[in-house]
Amino acid sequence: MILQAVIDIAEICARKGVQDVVLSPGSRCAPLTLAFARHPQLRVRTVPDERSAAFIGLGIAQQTGKPVVLVCTSGTAAYNYAPAVAEAFYQNIPLLVLTADRPPEWIDQLDGQTIRQSHIYGGHVKRSLDFPVDTSHADSQWHANRLINEAFNEATAFPEGPVHLNIPLREPFYPEEGEVFAFSSDVKIIEELPSAFGLPAEVWQQLATELKTYKRVLVVAGQGRKDDALHAVIQNFCRATGAVFVADTISNQQADGETINYHDVFLGAKHLQTEEALKPDLLITFHKSLISKNLKLFLRQQQGMAHWHVQPAGMVADTFQKLTRIIRTQPQTFFEQLTQQETGLQVTPAFTQAWHELNATAKSVLARFQENSPFSEFNACYQVLRNLPQNSLLHLANSMSVRYANLIGVAENPGVEVFANRGTSGIDGSTSTAVGSALSTDKLVTLVTGDMAFLYDRNALWHNDLPQNLRIVVLNNHGGGIFRMIEGPRSQPELRPFFETEQRQTAQKTAEDMGLGYLKVTDSVSLQEALTGFFDPSAGPQLLELETSSPENYEIFAEYRKAVQGIKLG
Amino acid sequence: MILQAVIDIAEICARKGVQDVVLSPGSRCAPLTLAFARHPQLRVRTVPDERSAAFIGLGIAQQTGKPVVLVCTSGTAAYNYAPAVAEAFYQNIPLLVLTADRPPEWIDQLDGQTIRQSHIYGGHVKRSLDFPVDTSHADSQWHANRLINEAFNEATAFPEGPVHLNIPLREPFYPEEGEVFAFSSDVKIIEELPSAFGLPAEVWQQLATELKTYKRVLVVAGQGRKDDALHAVIQNFCRATGAVFVADTISNQQADGETINYHDVFLGAKHLQTEEALKPDLLITFHKSLISKNLKLFLRQQQGMAHWHVQPAGMVADTFQKLTRIIRTQPQTFFEQLTQQETGLQVTPAFTQAWHELNATAKSVLARFQENSPFSEFNACYQVLRNLPQNSLLHLANSMSVRYANLIGVAENPGVEVFANRGTSGIDGSTSTAVGSALSTDKLVTLVTGDMAFLYDRNALWHNDLPQNLRIVVLNNHGGGIFRMIEGPRSQPELRPFFETEQRQTAQKTAEDMGLGYLKVTDSVSLQEALTGFFDPSAGPQLLELETSSPENYEIFAEYRKAVQGIKLG
Repeated sequence: MILQAVIDIAEICARKGVQDVVLSPGSRCAPLTLAFARHPQLRVRTVPDERSAAFIGLGIAQQTGKPVVLVCTSGTAAYNYAPAVAEAFYQNIPLLVLTADRPPEWIDQLDGQTIRQSHIYGGHVKRSLDFPVDTSHADSQWHANRLINEAFNEATAFPEGPVHLNIPLREPFYPEEGEVFAFSSDVKIIEELPSAFGLPAEVWQQLATELKTYKRVLVVAGQGRKDDALHAVIQNFCRATGAVFVADTISNQQADGETINYHDVFLGAKHLQTEEALKPDLLITFHKSLISKNLKLFLRQQQGMAHWHVQPAGMVADTFQKLTRIIRTQPQTFFEQLTQQETGLQVTPAFTQAWHELNATAKSVLARFQENSPFSEFNACYQVLRNLPQNSLLHLANSMSVRYANLIGVAENPGVEVFANRGTSGIDGSTSTAVGSALSTDKLVTLVTGDMAFLYDRNALWHNDLPQNLRIVVLNNHGGGIFRMIEGPRSQPELRPFFETEQRQTAQKTAEDMGLGYLKVTDSVSLQEALTGFFDPSAGPQLLELETSSPENYEIFAEYRKAVQGIKLG
Repeated sequence: MILQAVIDIAEICARKGVQDVVLSPGSRCAPLTLAFARHPQLRVRTVPDERSAAFIGLGIAQQTGKPVVLVCTSGTAAYNYAPAVAEAFYQNIPLLVLTADRPPEWIDQLDGQTIRQSHIYGGHVKRSLDFPVDTSHADSQWHANRLINEAFNEATAFPEGPVHLNIPLREPFYPEEGEVFAFSSDVKIIEELPSAFGLPAEVWQQLATELKTYKRVLVVAGQGRKDDALHAVIQNFCRATGAVFVADTISNQQADGETINYHDVFLGAKHLQTEEALKPDLLITFHKSLISKNLKLFLRQQQGMAHWHVQPAGMVADTFQKLTRIIRTQPQTFFEQLTQQETGLQVTPAFTQAWHELNATAKSVLARFQENSPFSEFNACYQVLRNLPQNSLLHLANSMSVRYANLIGVAENPGVEVFANRGTSGIDGSTSTAVGSALSTDKLVTLVTGDMAFLYDRNALWHNDLPQNLRIVVLNNHGGGIFRMIEGPRSQPELRPFFETEQRQTAQKTAEDMGLGYLKVTDSVSLQEALTGFFDPSAGPQLLELETSSPENYEIFAEYRKAVQGIKLG
């Protein structure tokens, strides 16, 4: 008999609102596989490489906002999940990671696919739970039921994240002849209601009073989902007060003419890093990580600046080494309240103007540079981004792709939402995450990636669920071109063999193996021609390879850096 | 200035006898990359996918017997090492895992490629060490030096295994202009001398006295390296006493006519599982894991059997649930001593004869079956193994490849040594391990693998060090054929989509991308013709794909299982 408590894991997950399950094949996990595959309300997919499977699950959860269940067999399968689990932890994406295990008495007994799985993800899960091996006692049944409820509630409580449930399973793994395999109708559900994350009236009063003592207020958004309501509230706040709103591409807060989007361009000008007119006395931040190293450097050197971070709950990073206050409410509530309260905050007009003037200048410098520069990665990326279909999704791989995109932005592309694995910034799952995303939306999903990130994670495409709406742009410079962009490695004799690590492959054979349409272009005109067909919604999964030379990319990017130095105020 | 203590890590490793280093490219690890790449005594290779890099390192260490240094950058790179680290832990292979990290103050601050790396491999390393972040104090310099010594000594002390050293690094990562980058000439070395693992005279006496009280002694070798001296000693012991020596293919103890090699065949006959004539009263084991499930099942049901396990030090598994005594000496010493002491042990001849008779019968039943059966995976595997060049190496992937090979054996192939990742039995690194092996020997290295294991680990071949002596045989049944071989999943409607997980790729495009010669065969005659060229030492890296159908493989293997039931005594 398969334990009813194991079968009911699927039932509890479904009742709690799980929609998607990603399985990887295995023997030990068979009872879980059967339970999930047979559940009528769950969408179940199979991905053989667990590293990719977990990132695909992450991409689905990122897109749907609902926890995705991952199921793998025992042994190192569980370890192959680890990169995605860490990414989910730092990106606050809810995953229920179910790893089948041998029962405890068989650990370390040299039986196949047996390692020390309990608590295997260390500090990278919100909680790590051990399912009971035996549920004959009534208390164990209560325990088993409770653990699934707890795992779900923990994964979805703010800030969301991965929860690990290790499930020791004894044979039989398959129903015996005549055995009834059915979900219990009376599983107990523990519902956790959402919190409001309100602040006491006197704290609001204190914030309002303090706020008006500042004259140069900078609002900076970290990585987050597209949120028009939040954006409107911040816009109101900025209009009412003159505060300046700066948003990286991955913050998805770019969609108007009033937000500073080209800061990563103009703060690249050395002299602007210390420009008096730009210096804030109060920095207000919300959401997660930033891409712009120029902005980080700028903020880290500010003296005497207060830094308020707005986040309802959870660990707060002191990204700029200036953090002075943590405010435990939703960003939307924060800006709404402080606009309504009419704090009397009046930002110095010169400060506001300086940021907006530089933003406009940077935008036109960038456009002029791109129009006049020869074909390169940077240029190709600009062309692709400027041609993105409206209301589509953009995934950016680490490491140069996301940096180029942060300079270029998607402010000119209405409705585009941007994603990147900036929780841990690995190259190991960018394609898989984009696949997961594409599986969960009808919109077109474009991934811009480099050859290293693409080939590293090529198993992202190795399964039977290749989404029709997936478009992949591979910037192939035949190595880790980012290392040539950095002064340190570029000047070492080890650059080519040990940092760039030249590789000769194109993405063509991978595309053919995986069933994607393939086209390679090496110049701007062909790229422009190709993009129409590439973005055609009926084209099916497509891969467009842009082959460039790493030394030329460097030369052209060096020209860009030089052009940026000319940006100035007034 | 790059810290001298960081540069000297390479120097200490070289003086301690490290020969090989596998790097993966990264920014944070640049000081380590430079130190290892510039060290004149170290052989340094670069592999982009850390999962493969670590298994390649494992393959090298497995082959050379010396610890291999792995170097990766910070973040999830370290997690991609984890499957190989766990495999090394259970297979007792020495690895020095050096992971570059941010300094502790930057952990959890949303900076790129930063996770909680300290102790990241949990229970799967012998030790986990944290390198000092600052070595300005003299005590810290002593600490830094001592940690590298300790890491090496721990990794190489019996039983060997992986040690993790997490190395927080602050900028600069590259030498500044005019900075001298040189290894210290006076690094301190702490030498750990090997232990003899002797037993007191009275314990030998006790063992000798007890030994002669047994009448049916079975010696079983687990996975281990080829060791002619050990084999000769066991042969002497068996000749002198009548004890029966049973050896799985991966034990590398097959090379004579006196060892039982076809136990996995004849113990597949149900009635022989309970055959009185075969029952041992004393089981003596040494080394690591077994493949033969038939042998495991047979031994687990023995009543009243004593089980002695000979292992100098470290954790001992109770594989058969019968363990009664752990003997802390080398297997060679054990059998030598107990042969010399003339214990008077006289094994019942009927017992000895029964095992040898069945071994001979099984060998001929197998040969007859293979000669008469149509082309299938099992048959193809038999043909490949019987044609292996003398004194070459054979790597077996999990999961059907190693099982077929354990039935077929390499007893007929003089000098062939066999490897398989049976520490954790994952499919995630079989190809990478074979690559590492091939990089460290002049012998021909043949990997027999399935399509799932091969495609899962295809990045094993994605680097610039493809060994000329590598031969890969892919048994392609377009899915995880093992699930059809097992009664449980075969009878479920989920077999094809969720267990076998059908996949349509062949290995051809991967072979082309990676620079291997490629040939596909689908029948026995073509295979026989192909093998000569395939095994030609001057052919360069080759991939031979044997395409079969999973249902046919099952039918033919079912025939084999039926044929085996006819094996009987007398």
